[in-house]
Amino acid sequence: MKFLVIGGDAAGMSAASKAKRLDPDIEVTVLEKTFDVSYSACGMPYNIADPDRSIDDLVVRDAKTFIEKNRINLLTGHEARKIDRENRTVEGFASDGETFAYGYDRLLIATGASARVLDIPGTDLDGVLVLKSLEDGRKIKSCIERKQVKKAVIAGMGYISLEMAEALHERSVHVQMVKPGKKLLPWMSRDLADVVNQELEAEGVTLYPGHAVKRIEKTGGNLTVVCEGLDLDADMVILAVGVAPNSRIASEAGLETGIGGAVAVDQFCRTSDENIYSAGDCADAFHVVTGEKCYIPLALRANRAGWAVADNVCGGRTALQGVAGTAVFKVFDLEVARTGLTTKEAADAGFDPVEETIRSSSRAHSYPGAHPVHVAMVGDRKTRRLLGVQMVGKEGVAHRINAPAVALHTHMTVDAFSQTDLAYAPPFGPTWDPMLTCANQLLKKLKD
Amino acid sequence: MKFLVIGGDAAGMSAASKAKRLDPDIEVTVLEKTFDVSYSACGMPYNIADPDRSIDDLVVRDAKTFIEKNRINLLTGHEARKIDRENRTVEGFASDGETFAYGYDRLLIATGASARVLDIPGTDLDGVLVLKSLEDGRKIKSCIERKQVKKAVIAGMGYISLEMAEALHERSVHVQMVKPGKKLLPWMSRDLADVVNQELEAEGVTLYPGHAVKRIEKTGGNLTVVCEGLDLDADMVILAVGVAPNSRIASEAGLETGIGGAVAVDQFCRTSDENIYSAGDCADAFHVVTGEKCYIPLALRANRAGWAVADNVCGGRTALQGVAGTAVFKVFDLEVARTGLTTKEAADAGFDPVEETIRSSSRAHSYPGAHPVHVAMVGDRKTRRLLGVQMVGKEGVAHRINAPAVALHTHMTVDAFSQTDLAYAPPFGPTWDPMLTCANQLLKKLKD
Repeated sequence: MKFLVIGGDAAGMSAASKAKRLDPDIEVTVLEKTFDVSYSACGMPYNIADPDRSIDDLVVRDAKTFIEKNRINLLTGHEARKIDRENRTVEGFASDGETFAYGYDRLLIATGASARVLDIPGTDLDGVLVLKSLEDGRKIKSCIERKQVKKAVIAGMGYISLEMAEALHERSVHVQMVKPGKKLLPWMSRDLADVVNQELEAEGVTLYPGHAVKRIEKTGGNLTVVCEGLDLDADMVILAVGVAPNSRIASEAGLETGIGGAVAVDQFCRTSDENIYSAGDCADAFHVVTGEKCYIPLALRANRAGWAVADNVCGGRTALQGVAGTAVFKVFDLEVARTGLTTKEAADAGFDPVEETIRSSSRAHSYPGAHPVHVAMVGDRKTRRLLGVQMVGKEGVAHRINAPAVALHTHMTVDAFSQTDLAYAPPFGPTWDPMLTCANQLLKKLKD
Repeated sequence: MKFLVIGGDAAGMSAASKAKRLDPDIEVTVLEKTFDVSYSACGMPYNIADPDRSIDDLVVRDAKTFIEKNRINLLTGHEARKIDRENRTVEGFASDGETFAYGYDRLLIATGASARVLDIPGTDLDGVLVLKSLEDGRKIKSCIERKQVKKAVIAGMGYISLEMAEALHERSVHVQMVKPGKKLLPWMSRDLADVVNQELEAEGVTLYPGHAVKRIEKTGGNLTVVCEGLDLDADMVILAVGVAPNSRIASEAGLETGIGGAVAVDQFCRTSDENIYSAGDCADAFHVVTGEKCYIPLALRANRAGWAVADNVCGGRTALQGVAGTAVFKVFDLEVARTGLTTKEAADAGFDPVEETIRSSSRAHSYPGAHPVHVAMVGDRKTRRLLGVQMVGKEGVAHRINAPAVALHTHMTVDAFSQTDLAYAPPFGPTWDPMLTCANQLLKKLKD
């Protein structure tokens, strides 16, 4: 049995390794176009923040280990270009310019996602960078040092942008952020987004929402980011305006793609060709709240899907439940978390969403040092189902979000969630956990 | 409508206040035997740790506010002694020695629990104290100062004992702990209990498990705790050997009592007399995992049950789901948490428990400053249900436990839990949350 994998990061290497564990006789080949495999992309902002650490610290397991210990035929510098489904072959170019062709019985497309690049003049200038691959991280670190960067502009204000703002601030770089939309974290309840806004401003990060970037110009030794009604001066510009699935090789092979252009897969991570799987940031997933397809490329799903593919390639029948859209990030002293649907997403999915927002506390009143914990909760008026939760606070947010995440997997009502037996001790929260307080308040609105 | 409440702490005052909110015309009388109402008992160890704070800081709302603002007829210093169910009257003694009798249409027994006192000589000596009421807290604080306590013995090694060990350590008191059983935290997975043991030892707390206390003697200005095969010297002795429900007034009135001697209640918090409710640390509850009665007196349940009683007294029909046995405590730098059943409890309840213990990390390998997170998970071999989880670690434990707590409410399988979409970012954990890693490992054992 020949198992061929395109892409050597989270999903690809998880699948390759697990397949060899399940069946040592399976022939596993991985085609990776870069020379980096199995690294923690999510760790890049924190690594960039620290001048004393090498970006290579993010490598979880190096190519040599995969080849020698796991007996995987791992080919770095091999870029797959075409899937020939009829002959079950993948063709491409190696870094030495030679073409290659590998046959498969089962194929996994784990090509990941790429940073979106703004279609504007100047994105190719020296000092204009994106952050997705380990190589991107290397370039940013080297740019900071080489150009002695003091001022940076980040285009985009999503998770990665905010993590990068903190990372650059750690490197004593003044950060200005710009994006076309008028709202910071538009998916978030306004009360909560305001807390994030205040934190960023308190740390000296300047936000310019509502200004689309028109072009980037070189002015002397510096860069000017020319926006609508605004010019921003910078030594370095980071474009972090989201990611897009690398699904072209799949769509050109006639495989179905769906939401956001991602490769469409079923619960078994199978594409529209039963011999071809897809997993990781290039593939879509079912959302456990809506039951519909979604594109939420995150690390846990990539690893989990890689394992599921290995199971299924090796004769198992592992189905994935789907994603709840659970995510957390740290921005300076704040923890920001979400799970499930926002009010807008809920309305778009046909629910009748009702939202409540409360401010509680990270510790009991009897325990010193408390910080506010802000919770927003969305429920459905008709079915009373819990649809989503968002939280912001300086402590006790990141792991709290997992409780409603589990609730979403079971289609729990707000009523049932409000009755759950959550942990209490004075150092960790009030007797009524902030999420329970929010649920209790939301119940009143649902009764109206 | 006359609503009479015996007991003015969490359950009693929650019920009284909510009843007045729901129906301003209801006549609410509360009989409280002490002069303290509505205080945070759980906050006492932390208050005792701080010589500059008054124990009265733990009062959430004082009697005057309840009387004047909430228009509750709150009678402190009123000890109820007898319930006359035929005439719907409660009789007792006020602190001035006068007898009283109050009639009711609906009665709530919210008498709480008392600290168990060892049936040994010497428990009445000066400096031998328990910790349950606010008055007990006052006595401990005053004893520490008056006797300039340098050495204390704590009999018992449960949550409260461990919190008190930390509190006294903060006051520069050397703490020795003793109990008859041979195991620290016997309900806990051994690997996890060992971590707690090491933490206590590292902080200079000396543990003597396996030694029953036989008597306490006065020797000169000091106390000697005479144990089996061991004499311990102390300026102060704290007996923290558990609590027992204050259910005598209920049982003497012929109401059913059950597990641990607690007042037996149904899902509506109703006793065997349909006009009498019971809530808080004196009452039992259904366990969501077993569906059977249990006695787990904790603060959230007391507050929740108080509210439910108010709803039901005011014509509603609020049922409580039951408890999952979720609890958390801090001991020095460790967070210790549990939810659901231990392996032994699961076996006793008729399950076929399988346990797995893992050690993971509180942060991703790419993020500095990680601490170990230890997880123990119990599943049922036959049904594959998740039955319980325990965790210990220096960070990220207290709120993590809420995810499996929610899972227990829905009778989720380990398989389903292992597929839940939990939050990931490098500052807060590895890609596979420690609980997912434990679930994945447990699944392998369940397949055997």
